[in-house]
Amino acid sequence: MPKQDALPRPVSIVGAGMSKFGSFPEKNSRDLFVEAFKDLRITVDKGFDPAQIEAFYVGNFSSDLFEHQGHIAPLIADAVGITPCPATRVEDACASGGVALRQGIMAVASGMYDVVLVGGVEKMTNLPTSEVTDTLGTAADVPFEISAGFTFPGFYAAMATAYMARYGMTPDHLKHVAIKNHDNGALNPNAQFGVTIQKWMEGRIAAALKKGKPAPKWNSIWDFLNDDGGNPMVAWPLRLFDCSPVTDGASAVLLVAGELANSFSDHPINVRGSAQASDSALYGRADLTSVPAARIASQKAYSMAGVSAKDIRIAEVHDCFTIAEVIASEDIGFFNPGDGYKAAEDGVTARTGSKPINTSGGLKSKGHPVGASGVAQVVEVVKQMRGQAGERQVAGDIPLALTHNVGATGSTCVVHIYERTN
Amino acid sequence: MPKQDALPRPVSIVGAGMSKFGSFPEKNSRDLFVEAFKDLRITVDKGFDPAQIEAFYVGNFSSDLFEHQGHIAPLIADAVGITPCPATRVEDACASGGVALRQGIMAVASGMYDVVLVGGVEKMTNLPTSEVTDTLGTAADVPFEISAGFTFPGFYAAMATAYMARYGMTPDHLKHVAIKNHDNGALNPNAQFGVTIQKWMEGRIAAALKKGKPAPKWNSIWDFLNDDGGNPMVAWPLRLFDCSPVTDGASAVLLVAGELANSFSDHPINVRGSAQASDSALYGRADLTSVPAARIASQKAYSMAGVSAKDIRIAEVHDCFTIAEVIASEDIGFFNPGDGYKAAEDGVTARTGSKPINTSGGLKSKGHPVGASGVAQVVEVVKQMRGQAGERQVAGDIPLALTHNVGATGSTCVVHIYERTN
Repeated sequence: MPKQDALPRPVSIVGAGMSKFGSFPEKNSRDLFVEAFKDLRITVDKGFDPAQIEAFYVGNFSSDLFEHQGHIAPLIADAVGITPCPATRVEDACASGGVALRQGIMAVASGMYDVVLVGGVEKMTNLPTSEVTDTLGTAADVPFEISAGFTFPGFYAAMATAYMARYGMTPDHLKHVAIKNHDNGALNPNAQFGVTIQKWMEGRIAAALKKGKPAPKWNSIWDFLNDDGGNPMVAWPLRLFDCSPVTDGASAVLLVAGELANSFSDHPINVRGSAQASDSALYGRADLTSVPAARIASQKAYSMAGVSAKDIRIAEVHDCFTIAEVIASEDIGFFNPGDGYKAAEDGVTARTGSKPINTSGGLKSKGHPVGASGVAQVVEVVKQMRGQAGERQVAGDIPLALTHNVGATGSTCVVHIYERTN
Repeated sequence: MPKQDALPRPVSIVGAGMSKFGSFPEKNSRDLFVEAFKDLRITVDKGFDPAQIEAFYVGNFSSDLFEHQGHIAPLIADAVGITPCPATRVEDACASGGVALRQGIMAVASGMYDVVLVGGVEKMTNLPTSEVTDTLGTAADVPFEISAGFTFPGFYAAMATAYMARYGMTPDHLKHVAIKNHDNGALNPNAQFGVTIQKWMEGRIAAALKKGKPAPKWNSIWDFLNDDGGNPMVAWPLRLFDCSPVTDGASAVLLVAGELANSFSDHPINVRGSAQASDSALYGRADLTSVPAARIASQKAYSMAGVSAKDIRIAEVHDCFTIAEVIASEDIGFFNPGDGYKAAEDGVTARTGSKPINTSGGLKSKGHPVGASGVAQVVEVVKQMRGQAGERQVAGDIPLALTHNVGATGSTCVVHIYERTN
């Protein structure tokens, strides 16, 4: 008799911070996490002493291959001064952050701890691109998929073509996702690519002219996005701007038992739903147009929270590729199957739409430091629910929000639902 | 206000199994885990349907570097047919298994799940020894320790020399630990080195004679153990037989809510204490003769269980090196500081002694597939408490047992206490 119908003990988020996302050759995982932890401390508005932290979970995909460093949980705990508290690394590929959050929630919900730090971190940019691609490939089923020639752009390209074939979507529809997420990311000071695609294109033209070269003939961002010179093909139908970047970054949230929340913050956010599901790797699935683990995790999270998709005001979803956001927007129940790409085209998922998705800029524009991404989603949700998202603030009340974090092509998915209190 | 004084909800172990430990070039992590899972199923004496499993945690140190495969939790879940249940990898170096167990316990204790599978796995032997050593080194603080020339035998050699200087132990005292653990492992059919040191030596002599070479002049195992030809120096004072081996293997336990235990088994084992602590890497510690994280975790586990070291009948401790067992036997409170090596010499920790340690053979003889070791300790404890340990069964009643699992040189330590019910 599974008891997933409610958290056995209320859990609140009382602070959430992140490092700047980007490429920082001089910083390692620990440096990045210290930056996120400092940012977190500012957001716990009534303050706290790090000695109050009783346990620490960190999501990280592969410090092993990216930095030749394992066992990073105690190293990070030491760097932020919270030893001897239990320090545990959680790994589920790109869902590592969301799954770490879930362990932290369970640790508080169990009654074993009252104050738990959850973080995510990845240091990716020191390797050459080919080795980054190779390392990311270890999130797939290596002997059955990578040996057959697949890389992640290829997996998601296969999902995109399956979706196009079934629902009539075109490659241009996907570009609306990228345009929107860069519009949002341009308003996020922590984003790796804090610039609209329009500005990006203008920058490219200006750079060409500065070098005395002929200006590219791009009269609009659509010219730019459909030109191999502006937006190179990666794996048809996915071009460069359909793909999230390689990023260094860290993120952190502070969880406390519900009954203590008001002693840490005037604006605690309650965790209402938490669910996770697993699946076979992509090669084992009958249908590529949705992600079963995401559907299952969403349903369980809604069920635990006692709400449905229509009640959710905003969502941060796992847009490692533009097609991933389209499918995610359907898997979480915002739209019916085959309607997700239309919603993106129609602006429904824009900041000003009725179902804003990835107001942070998403993985696409904010950046995707693998293990940090799931926790960084929470940082955005907390900022938005508190009304502290600055220029990218969604108008009106945000009573409920959702995060959706995927590992690989959906062998792991973890979904959380949050409720604003004050 | 930390609530570590008791598990909020009783948790029982209703089965525990493991693969054969050793070197298996034809098997990967998944193959090994399937073997452990099959063995586990036999030990759940009232049987169960894998579909009853609601969540899965697997301890694994570095499938990334050992097998170039990340995200192994859902791959393993798929291999044993338990998708879509949540599948999560937990990593804390050599403590990964014990920490995974702790997450499983928390998942049940939280009330979120009733039936949780916990496993550990590592596939190490396909790499050349130099790369294995290098990979194990990533459990340390790489920029501060490995760059300075340390490897793990060096770390533990430093601890051994510090201990010798303080307490007057000699290298020969350490050999008693190896002799005892090989005596135990010789009675464990799953052990990598299921042979006493006497038999090992005789085998070496017979092999030399068979090749027509002169027989080594070893009149006793002490000759053998003190001869560079029999027992080469690794890092003074540690010789080969002071070090645990490189091993492939997997282990698994089934946890259920206490109230359900009797529907799974006539011999459930209750989890009475569970604690974990972190610390800086070795270079940051004031004293090398004990492991602070092990002392803290032990104290917390005893406190949660409401018992003390004198109540514990047997323990499986983390003997990655012989000196580690000596220090562990003091850190868990079996002996006073400086008395552990005497207890080993006097047979107190032997199977027939008053405080048996590592009846399984320990990491030294059973083998040390890093992520699997912490969970394999539980396999031994369950067998012993159920009276199913065959030739190596400890005499008399075993009401309480303890496991002690260390990551790196003690940046992580996790301790559990178990209680026999029927």
